[in-house]
Amino acid sequence: MISKKMENIGSNVSSIRKLFEYGRKKALEIGNENVFDFSIGNPSTPAPQEVNDAIIEIIQNEDMINVNSYTSAAGDKDVRNTIAASLNKRFGTQYKGDHLFMCSGAAPALVACFRALIVNENSEIIAIAPYFPEYKVFVEGNGGKLIILPPDIPNFQINFDALIDNINENTQAIIVNSPNNPSGVVYSEDTIKRLVGVLKEKSEELGHPIYLLSDEPYRELVYGDTLVPWIPDFYDNTIVCYSYSKSLSLPGQRIGWILVPEGIMEREDVWAAIIGGARVCGHVCASSLYQRVIAKCIDIRPNLTIYQRNRDLLYTKLSEMGYRCAKPEGAFYLFLQAPDGDAAAFSERAKELGLLITPGGEMGCPSYLRISYCVQTEQIECALPLFKKLFSK
Amino acid sequence: MISKKMENIGSNVSSIRKLFEYGRKKALEIGNENVFDFSIGNPSTPAPQEVNDAIIEIIQNEDMINVNSYTSAAGDKDVRNTIAASLNKRFGTQYKGDHLFMCSGAAPALVACFRALIVNENSEIIAIAPYFPEYKVFVEGNGGKLIILPPDIPNFQINFDALIDNINENTQAIIVNSPNNPSGVVYSEDTIKRLVGVLKEKSEELGHPIYLLSDEPYRELVYGDTLVPWIPDFYDNTIVCYSYSKSLSLPGQRIGWILVPEGIMEREDVWAAIIGGARVCGHVCASSLYQRVIAKCIDIRPNLTIYQRNRDLLYTKLSEMGYRCAKPEGAFYLFLQAPDGDAAAFSERAKELGLLITPGGEMGCPSYLRISYCVQTEQIECALPLFKKLFSK
Repeated sequence: MISKKMENIGSNVSSIRKLFEYGRKKALEIGNENVFDFSIGNPSTPAPQEVNDAIIEIIQNEDMINVNSYTSAAGDKDVRNTIAASLNKRFGTQYKGDHLFMCSGAAPALVACFRALIVNENSEIIAIAPYFPEYKVFVEGNGGKLIILPPDIPNFQINFDALIDNINENTQAIIVNSPNNPSGVVYSEDTIKRLVGVLKEKSEELGHPIYLLSDEPYRELVYGDTLVPWIPDFYDNTIVCYSYSKSLSLPGQRIGWILVPEGIMEREDVWAAIIGGARVCGHVCASSLYQRVIAKCIDIRPNLTIYQRNRDLLYTKLSEMGYRCAKPEGAFYLFLQAPDGDAAAFSERAKELGLLITPGGEMGCPSYLRISYCVQTEQIECALPLFKKLFSK
Repeated sequence: MISKKMENIGSNVSSIRKLFEYGRKKALEIGNENVFDFSIGNPSTPAPQEVNDAIIEIIQNEDMINVNSYTSAAGDKDVRNTIAASLNKRFGTQYKGDHLFMCSGAAPALVACFRALIVNENSEIIAIAPYFPEYKVFVEGNGGKLIILPPDIPNFQINFDALIDNINENTQAIIVNSPNNPSGVVYSEDTIKRLVGVLKEKSEELGHPIYLLSDEPYRELVYGDTLVPWIPDFYDNTIVCYSYSKSLSLPGQRIGWILVPEGIMEREDVWAAIIGGARVCGHVCASSLYQRVIAKCIDIRPNLTIYQRNRDLLYTKLSEMGYRCAKPEGAFYLFLQAPDGDAAAFSERAKELGLLITPGGEMGCPSYLRISYCVQTEQIECALPLFKKLFSK
């Protein structure tokens, strides 16, 4: 009488979340100072002061009946215009507010797109390993198939042979996540160009567009002079899903958007289907307060000091110990190769020392582990000797 | 290549929303003062001052990294405990925080429940006309069938003959919405007892539970000494979906909860399936700020002054003119019988006078119209002569 599928999805906690919950319990037993939790992607940098200021300013100066009202399903007009203008300034584009759909973070944004693009049980969405494990829940939980491309080890760009092999008449979209969770890698312009070349060729061959979903919550989190290509510049059929969870350190507030640009094929149908996809999920509008807050903070960029320091420290020290990983250029993850190739066993051994790092099996890379370094730097300093101990085992 | 089903759902704006958008456009043409918009259910009473105070207090005194972090999917433990304690105080129950799942308003709450209870394309959910039109989108958009019981005219309680006729082996749940949108009627204790009697008998006969989903965003909006029965007291298999949209005038902020009490049959499976249902819709957590805000405002009840005044004025004056309707005891809607029985035509004639009231066809009552009286009282005063004019036509 109960949906077994939903029951399973509700019962099978992700390995990230499982490790995180384990860490919380363990901390109660042996003390917080003895647990080194690198499991979850909760920003360790506070939201900028401007976010708090914006909330207080709104409460003190605006008509709160208006602020607390439903906005239209796609979001407040002024907010959407502000975001479009900001994108246009950054990327030299000509988006309008009407191209944006405000939603409660990237997760429901992606689901709305999947609902729009999954037409029957044969519909395929391609993800590139390593990938964010929730993609599987979002696609399969809504009746489609998630096709995983094997990873391009050790650089974690794209395995193009596998891509070409895996595109067929059921391919509806490919999801691209760069800066990448969990590898920290940014897809180069060269990678994007090659990807787009394949998608264009295959779309033509198949006689239908293969949409590209660009999942970009980490766009602003890049180090040094790394550039994150703006994919719609290269490929018309790109839908961008964005979230302020990481860039403004607001993961708990659930605010983001979907961009469906003008040049997209069958744009009006895609747009309507995304609205429908959000509606059947119970979307009414994104938080009307946080819509206004992000508009007021449109030019604020994250303070990357802690993340950059953490990345440098971890990458340098782990490399010195003999560990191997792709140098993270963005996000706040480092994707470590298990020295003996068995990440699940390595994670278990680490757990015994109080060191919580997620094995990459669910991310499509069973010989790698994800280290979330959105922590205080002291935690890394304390954990390094444990990494050393584990390596010598 | 695009889901036609989602495209249709995304294109077919509800008649409420259509009328509302028309009103906005019309106001630009002929002036706000010439449009009398009774279409949408946006509270006209501001959120209590305590809500603003709570936000400012949190921002000024709490650790904002914590406040802005993801909570667990079910919500913050302290918040859930606070809500459970408040329910226990009000209803003499023994709920725990663990029985509550925090979500982004009643719409995604209902969808999560529907996803849990729709097991295949034959699964049926019963709604009672008049009903909130989005139920149809939520159930059919997620692969189930919505069965509509014809209305119990003129009192808008429940048509029990129709109920008995419509329960079969595919019946998974009945959705009960009292105080009712759109009728404003509250189901009496007698109605609830009869309903429960039927559900118990039929559950036994069929050998499986029929769950009762109680959709209660209007619980606190009742007039005079009207009592809203607490349905779990009468029926173990009740799941309650609650929202603060109306009780705290926060529709745009999207905050509410699902209560899955202990006594429910197969409770652990139902709970897991609801979590799964929310997860596949992209639920990560409800806004962590608003979770805290509602906990701080747990004892605040809405100021009903405007709504009560509006109800009294409308009900008295329209009755005097010769209109017929059930006296609204709750919510902020009055459900008017079209004098000639054709609500769609009546709504069109009203529109020509700038008077926007929604025909009840989509709500299962094509001879009635919904008047949302969550407006300023002056608007009603100005609109009354137009109602009079329409009646004499």
